[in-house]
Amino acid sequence: MGEPEGIIAEVQAIAAQAGEIALRYFGRVSAELKHDESYVTEADKQVEEFIRRQLGARFPRDGIIGEEFDRSRAGTSDWTWAIDPIDGTTNFVAGLPHWAVCIARLRDGRSELGVTNVPVLGEMYTAARGHGALLNGRALQIPDRLPPEHEQLLAVWSTAFRHITLEFPGKVRILGSTVLKLLYTARGAYIGALTPTVHVWDVASGLPVLWEAGGEARSFDGTLYEAADMDPAHGYAVPPLVLARPGLQKRVRELFTVTR
Amino acid sequence: MGEPEGIIAEVQAIAAQAGEIALRYFGRVSAELKHDESYVTEADKQVEEFIRRQLGARFPRDGIIGEEFDRSRAGTSDWTWAIDPIDGTTNFVAGLPHWAVCIARLRDGRSELGVTNVPVLGEMYTAARGHGALLNGRALQIPDRLPPEHEQLLAVWSTAFRHITLEFPGKVRILGSTVLKLLYTARGAYIGALTPTVHVWDVASGLPVLWEAGGEARSFDGTLYEAADMDPAHGYAVPPLVLARPGLQKRVRELFTVTR
Repeated sequence: MGEPEGIIAEVQAIAAQAGEIALRYFGRVSAELKHDESYVTEADKQVEEFIRRQLGARFPRDGIIGEEFDRSRAGTSDWTWAIDPIDGTTNFVAGLPHWAVCIARLRDGRSELGVTNVPVLGEMYTAARGHGALLNGRALQIPDRLPPEHEQLLAVWSTAFRHITLEFPGKVRILGSTVLKLLYTARGAYIGALTPTVHVWDVASGLPVLWEAGGEARSFDGTLYEAADMDPAHGYAVPPLVLARPGLQKRVRELFTVTR
Repeated sequence: MGEPEGIIAEVQAIAAQAGEIALRYFGRVSAELKHDESYVTEADKQVEEFIRRQLGARFPRDGIIGEEFDRSRAGTSDWTWAIDPIDGTTNFVAGLPHWAVCIARLRDGRSELGVTNVPVLGEMYTAARGHGALLNGRALQIPDRLPPEHEQLLAVWSTAFRHITLEFPGKVRILGSTVLKLLYTARGAYIGALTPTVHVWDVASGLPVLWEAGGEARSFDGTLYEAADMDPAHGYAVPPLVLARPGLQKRVRELFTVTR
């Protein structure tokens, strides 16, 4: 099936084109200041169809899963692609820049390769297990150094205020995209990030980047998260996760309490 | 002193150049993945000095205030410029895109003209009282239409979790820049936004944009906010504000409770 670097290059080209398609719709949202959900529905559909077509042609034996459940395709190889055409659709509708095109390749539920395109910011994150993580071709590694405590950033999700309380001396970020929590943690912008229950395609393209940059994903109880349950009957759900480098996992878990 | 449009064009040119200076430092942060506070201190200083020099040459009779208190200059005209060279310095240090160069002209503490440059996003917001608000030259007006309740966005500040509780069916955003709360509310991306106690230069360039787009700023008790107390002894503090269009002010105030 080719070396990871070759596959990454191919998938990156697909993600770049997919981003161009999405940007045409985003430009209309911005230009007309129309916060119309029909745009995002249409953009989502067009982008997902484009990616499915490209992957289907190039990797005909692989399975494909994504938001459009009924159109999921079982494969005959060990591999399954997970697609989120636009992660951060609320931002997309509101004209905010933090949304991303996400493509990942999984085996036994484990993300082995991920490509994430953040078109508005010109950021392309790529990684394959054992081959490192890159941002626009530059190696990513979570730095050891931490900012002063009051300047440390913790990212949480949009409705976290309904589910957790925080005891944290630093600052919170809520940008509104799941995959960006993994990517910005991998860059060292956050000391850690929390995700709620999501679908595998929301995190699959970011996980290899986080792992290769030296980060970990753990459940709120501390269990290492490594692979998704790929039984379609279970809905491809991923449990709430703490994203951080190993040395900060315990500290980040102690910053919050689940209230409901 | 020239018509507002002429002054806006001049200040916009200054803000554009100031953004270029800041971007050189930001590029280094990103390229070296160095989250070093000395970069932002140096960038802040260089950008503020550049803006002061330009404004001082062009408007020699006006006063200037900004973060570097000791270098504030009283003027002999009715006008005072308020400068925030980089609003959102934590983002700047972390390599996140939401930071802005802010320049505003005040009379009797009231922002009459504001220019805000968000260099990474290529967004230039300008407004003069009575002359409309523009984003990259395109008129801004808060739309009447609201997204469905669960998709509505409320923006709060980085440490709001220590000071308020929310009873809100929608989603929260914390991007980490004060002025962007005003600007994104003016675009209609948020149904409302909350700011904590800040300095006048943190909001001064965004207020005319918010006002001209049809928005209001009110204290948490509902008092209309119109002008800053410009007595230097009072530290140029602006009280916590609710930003929203008039018809949503009460609703947004009812979404949160101050706990301490």
